[in-house]
Amino acid sequence: MTPPTADQGRQTRSRIIGRAVDRASIEGLESLSFGELAKDLRLSKAGVAGPFGSKEALQLAAFDRAVQIFREHVWDPAADMPAGRRRLEAVCGNWLSYLEHCPFPGGCVVTTASVEWDARSGPVHDAVATAQKRWLAVLSAEADVAIRTGELSPVPDARQLAFELNGIAMSLNQAIQLLGDSDAPNRARRALDRLMAAA
Amino acid sequence: MTPPTADQGRQTRSRIIGRAVDRASIEGLESLSFGELAKDLRLSKAGVAGPFGSKEALQLAAFDRAVQIFREHVWDPAADMPAGRRRLEAVCGNWLSYLEHCPFPGGCVVTTASVEWDARSGPVHDAVATAQKRWLAVLSAEADVAIRTGELSPVPDARQLAFELNGIAMSLNQAIQLLGDSDAPNRARRALDRLMAAA
Repeated sequence: MTPPTADQGRQTRSRIIGRAVDRASIEGLESLSFGELAKDLRLSKAGVAGPFGSKEALQLAAFDRAVQIFREHVWDPAADMPAGRRRLEAVCGNWLSYLEHCPFPGGCVVTTASVEWDARSGPVHDAVATAQKRWLAVLSAEADVAIRTGELSPVPDARQLAFELNGIAMSLNQAIQLLGDSDAPNRARRALDRLMAAA
Repeated sequence: MTPPTADQGRQTRSRIIGRAVDRASIEGLESLSFGELAKDLRLSKAGVAGPFGSKEALQLAAFDRAVQIFREHVWDPAADMPAGRRRLEAVCGNWLSYLEHCPFPGGCVVTTASVEWDARSGPVHDAVATAQKRWLAVLSAEADVAIRTGELSPVPDARQLAFELNGIAMSLNQAIQLLGDSDAPNRARRALDRLMAAA
């Protein structure tokens, strides 16, 4: 048996992270286990644990991947637009579509982690809180530009708007994942439209 | 040693459930373990498991208690008011206060469970989904009365209003628990006021 090349090692690590993200969307990051992932991927437990070393390192890598996928669906398609109201609306539309057609089997991993880790402590909590703060700051910054250029009224202020947008997304994720409510995406879009029309 | 009386048995069961709810608010219902609860309460593991028989029965009892405490804080103080807009506003005010001064150390257990169990299956998922549906139905029914009596405009409709109220509460719970954002209660109240003023 020849040892794996660096490239094969990266591919294996990436496969493990992908599977971990899917599992975390259903069961949360805390329930991840090298043993279960090894069974899923038909690898040895040592082969799964090796690239990470600790469960915490795996959790951090899985959360990081989930944030990256979120960004690819929600932010990147609008990244080249000029900052302001239209980009904020585009990003929010992408956000609702991402929740409706979620790339993870158990719904948004970032949302799941934000609740799972809100009262725990340590590096995973810190990574989740940092990601959530950054996302609210991105939304606020976009709203700030729109307020300064007169595209949005200054009441509600930018952070208030980000807070309310986040609520619409959280309610949508719950309605889809927990309640199987097929009307929820339309409800979320109406809520978004009314919020932006009032702003 | 004399065997415990039925009354002592009920008290022990109730203490176990109380501790389980506090732990679930931090770690979720899935992380509950008879062994950890026994250590917390200085009881034998068999003494903690006995009144429940299975972890699932404990999870269901803990969730039931959490719903009861939610109702005591949010619904009961307004229960004697006439149905309609004023009671809906009172209940929503109680809801935000409950989240701000949460009786559980890790935030609202109902919210935590609604995310933790959204993609799992079985009796605990079903109990969580049923409780969440009932709560949204209570809010909708109250809004329906207010719409029929002309106290609220029919747009947004009652279910839309319930969806958006839920989002404000979820965003508040996250801002307090995950982000430690002390401005969030005021933000949530402003969001509630604007939503009700527009309705």
